Amino acid sequence: MLVDPNLPPTIQRSAVPLKEPLHYKKVLEQYDTWLFDCDGVIWTGPAGDTLTPNIGEAIAYLRSLGKGVAFVTNNATRSRRQYQEKFAGFGIDVSIDEIFTCGSATAEYLRANVLPSIKDEAKRNVYLIGQKAMEEEFESEGLKWKGGTDPEDDVLLEPQDFTPIKPDPSIGVVCYAFQMRINYCQLAKAYCYLSANEGCKLILTNDDESFLLPAGGFAPGEGAIARVLFGALPRSYKPEIVGKPHHPLLDVVRRETKFDPKRTVFVGDRLETDVLFAKRGELDSILVWTGISKPENLLGLHRDQHPEYTMSHVGAILDARQADKLPN
Amino acid sequence: MLVDPNLPPTIQRSAVPLKEPLHYKKVLEQYDTWLFDCDGVIWTGPAGDTLTPNIGEAIAYLRSLGKGVAFVTNNATRSRRQYQEKFAGFGIDVSIDEIFTCGSATAEYLRANVLPSIKDEAKRNVYLIGQKAMEEEFESEGLKWKGGTDPEDDVLLEPQDFTPIKPDPSIGVVCYAFQMRINYCQLAKAYCYLSANEGCKLILTNDDESFLLPAGGFAPGEGAIARVLFGALPRSYKPEIVGKPHHPLLDVVRRETKFDPKRTVFVGDRLETDVLFAKRGELDSILVWTGISKPENLLGLHRDQHPEYTMSHVGAILDARQADKLPN
Repeated sequence: MLVDPNLPPTIQRSAVPLKEPLHYKKVLEQYDTWLFDCDGVIWTGPAGDTLTPNIGEAIAYLRSLGKGVAFVTNNATRSRRQYQEKFAGFGIDVSIDEIFTCGSATAEYLRANVLPSIKDEAKRNVYLIGQKAMEEEFESEGLKWKGGTDPEDDVLLEPQDFTPIKPDPSIGVVCYAFQMRINYCQLAKAYCYLSANEGCKLILTNDDESFLLPAGGFAPGEGAIARVLFGALPRSYKPEIVGKPHHPLLDVVRRETKFDPKRTVFVGDRLETDVLFAKRGELDSILVWTGISKPENLLGLHRDQHPEYTMSHVGAILDARQADKLPN
Repeated sequence: MLVDPNLPPTIQRSAVPLKEPLHYKKVLEQYDTWLFDCDGVIWTGPAGDTLTPNIGEAIAYLRSLGKGVAFVTNNATRSRRQYQEKFAGFGIDVSIDEIFTCGSATAEYLRANVLPSIKDEAKRNVYLIGQKAMEEEFESEGLKWKGGTDPEDDVLLEPQDFTPIKPDPSIGVVCYAFQMRINYCQLAKAYCYLSANEGCKLILTNDDESFLLPAGGFAPGEGAIARVLFGALPRSYKPEIVGKPHHPLLDVVRRETKFDPKRTVFVGDRLETDVLFAKRGELDSILVWTGISKPENLLGLHRDQHPEYTMSHVGAILDARQADKLPN
């Protein structure tokens, strides 16, 4: 941790604002792997269509220094392949192996952890509430599913028409990924399987409660919609949540990229997901001001909840290039 | 309360099973107004298409004795008019004023209690999640609404298409009635209004968590779906719930029928809704075995949770006719 000469020593463990070329240089020396959240960090705006300043150049600079980079998002409405295309559309070259969505991580987690834990192979079917992007991730992992974009489930039911909703004892896992075509048929099928099939697991890609709407106000996220299903679960059972701030997403990133936690930093825009996620994974973190959290959100927080550093935007690290020209 | 000679005096305050002609006769003398739940009491089966034994004759017998009858259901998928037609289809003559659904009571409660409590008339618009039956009830009360069966809200949205979901500061009340065409557009609009409009109220017709599916397993009810919206509400705010076991439905029935609570009995099939509803309204209750609750559900319950009486089915009261022929 850098020492901020502007702060008295008693509160030195709060977040250190990175401002000077020398700060950036030292932080660059400190970390070999840089993990980035996407929304609010790489791009901004409800549609995610505006890049943050100099982000492409900053990523290229990190690569030129031999740093590992990866992108870790709680947004499962795009597949890894679609994210790669989105980066390419901005002229940023990113490999598919550098992209981790809570959706891709959920598919890997299902294949590697959840399904093998179900002893009876006849009960390993997955009911998916999710759209094309999730189906792509399932395909990449060689998983089969029921539901998804199946036209039988992509419907508004007629009143009291329960014909499509019947028990299916082969479903051992309900996997729910946020999607805007959610409807009663999907929710009732999931509820029915969770209530009727003993031991049936509920896996969420994330538990984000809400998000800001383009026109103002909030809309319910995956965490809010998933609450419908909680009553179908035994009281002692907690759903498994893959995305930030929970463990499984980071476990998948670590398994795939083999980063050294002591030499890795997570760069995000949200205290309650990104910074908490880093802390639970024992990673340092940098909070940027291009997204949701604002400097005033740090006031009154316990120091343990602070990121190690704050920074105006990711592109600011380019200032490190000036440090070599400065007198020591 | 009758004394059951088969029970020791120490537990005389538990539910008394009605079995003998003399029991029925005494209970008939005790109550002038008989309020009935419908599903599991008047009719049974997931489709509600099978009458309980001798129910039509039992209702006619009550009327012949000069008793007041009314029907009180937590099912808002039919309007009062549609319920009247359903009774008529079974050959049972019921007036529309004798039918109270949580939907009809919600419309009356909105008109009489909720809307007048909103001082700013420009903020008295209601956003309705509900289908034709609820719109009929709103019309009977002279209420206007947005949403309902409006085709703009009766949709499965395309991914990331938030265009229909925008703030509307005129909405002061979100009213949610169970319906199977529930979708993300409706939930997101409701969430947006509740999160963006200060003081916006949430009114539920009931908070039933789940119901048994015709083919087995459970499906989510209004209470489960409504949980999506709770995160949009200020922490101190509790949604207002009209249906059983909550107060407003009984207040509406009492206002309309002017029953005397001391001479009124509620007949239902569920301990946790019907019997609790009666207790909260300080009415006596009779639990019948034609629906959800079973005799074993009374075991281990505190006496305060017991109904005053239990009875195999409503039609059994016809046995009272034999009591006059018995020696005293």
